[in-house]
Amino acid sequence: MKIGKIIGTVVATRKDERLTGYKLMITQALDVKGQPEGDAIIAVDTVGAGMGELVIFTTGTAARYAADKPQSPIDAAIVGIIDNIDLDEDLLRRRE
Amino acid sequence: MKIGKIIGTVVATRKDERLTGYKLMITQALDVKGQPEGDAIIAVDTVGAGMGELVIFTTGTAARYAADKPQSPIDAAIVGIIDNIDLDEDLLRRRE
Amino acid sequence: MKIGKIIGTVVATRKDERLTGYKLMITQALDVKGQPEGDAIIAVDTVGAGMGELVIFTTGTAARYAADKPQSPIDAAIVGIIDNIDLDEDLLRRRE
Amino acid sequence: MKIGKIIGTVVATRKDERLTGYKLMITQALDVKGQPEGDAIIAVDTVGAGMGELVIFTTGTAARYAADKPQSPIDAAIVGIIDNIDLDEDLLRRRE
Amino acid sequence: MKIGKIIGTVVATRKDERLTGYKLMITQALDVKGQPEGDAIIAVDTVGAGMGELVIFTTGTAARYAADKPQSPIDAAIVGIIDNIDLDEDLLRRRE
Repeated sequence: MKIGKIIGTVVATRKDERLTGYKLMITQALDVKGQPEGDAIIAVDTVGAGMGELVIFTTGTAARYAADKPQSPIDAAIVGIIDNIDLDEDLLRRRE
Repeated sequence: MKIGKIIGTVVATRKDERLTGYKLMITQALDVKGQPEGDAIIAVDTVGAGMGELVIFTTGTAARYAADKPQSPIDAAIVGIIDNIDLDEDLLRRRE
Repeated sequence: MKIGKIIGTVVATRKDERLTGYKLMITQALDVKGQPEGDAIIAVDTVGAGMGELVIFTTGTAARYAADKPQSPIDAAIVGIIDNIDLDEDLLRRRE
Repeated sequence: MKIGKIIGTVVATRKDERLTGYKLMITQALDVKGQPEGDAIIAVDTVGAGMGELVIFTTGTAARYAADKPQSPIDAAIVGIIDNIDLDEDLLRRRE
Repeated sequence: MKIGKIIGTVVATRKDERLTGYKLMITQALDVKGQPEGDAIIAVDTVGAGMGELVIFTTGTAARYAADKPQSPIDAAIVGIIDNIDLDEDLLRRRE
């Protein structure tokens, strides 16, 4: 899973019907310091997340299980709304 | 899933027969600001998308379900034609 | 799927027996302008492709289905020989 | 699998129930010289790993099997605590 | 699959029991010219490969099949020991 932030939504009336009923959330992956890292993706929401919230998202087959639709075209899903990130900055810097 | 733009097609007469009947669309992944990001891929179209359209595409096993061919060599599929992208630019910039 | 070019072969006598009988083709992924992009991979050939040919290759579970060996160690397969790439250069440049 | 270091934890009360009961560990992938490489991810712990420990983590379907929850939204899991890394620096440098 | 070189091993006594019995080989992915490319990974050995050998490795579900453990936390496996790489340098340079 990864840390992400919801920064927008996508509207598509002509789409696979198994995507109907889901909010399609534009989710920007973040590094541990809150900076954008890599692509923004489109994830289906399964926990009632809103704009600007920090979330946990999952990808691949895991996303279809999160949406309880194992045979659907879903490949990314939001599975948690983050309350807190506890980071040990010292560990981040220390070289092995 | 990701945001993409259809920028071309590929023609291959000698191919796996389970790809026959699909338009093989060259799809460029875009970032949220509409700029090309990462590779262009070849995706099968499942929603009647056309050249230049902004689409939603999915990859991996999800793509085989999108094409209703779970046991095929498909690993990318177009699953939606985008009407609108609602982006909160402020959220994009704000640091966590 | 991706566009690739066959640039070599790999010979390995000591290998998983389920790879026996396949040509192991070194396939360089290309961008839409024919430039090398990202890693070269080793793909099994399923359509009779030859050195220097432009091909379509697929990865992951899709590759095992392409080789009709769903329970094998194959994770990349060549599934088409490209006749033609129709690219709309204008669409490539135009910003959304 | 990859080498990683546990540098933090994530707390999310509103999450998919199948993630309940797991410590959600922020795991930074490392290169063989102990430097951060690529994204930090969120992995479920399955071997009792603690902050700052060097671990082995796995991703995708493998992670769901590691957690013995094949139909869950898990896509990354910690599956070993590293005692020792034996690296042949000479091999690393030598060109093929 | 990819070309890799075995540059080390990892020892972890506290690990998922389904990893027991395998040599955990640190495998550096190489480009076609023998240069390190991308991350080094930890792969289970299934063909008796040794330090410094050039190998073929596979990832994802393919790796679990290579190890004949489809329900294990394995996501990378060595599946061949390379005798020879036949590369057409001319093809590598020529632009499509």
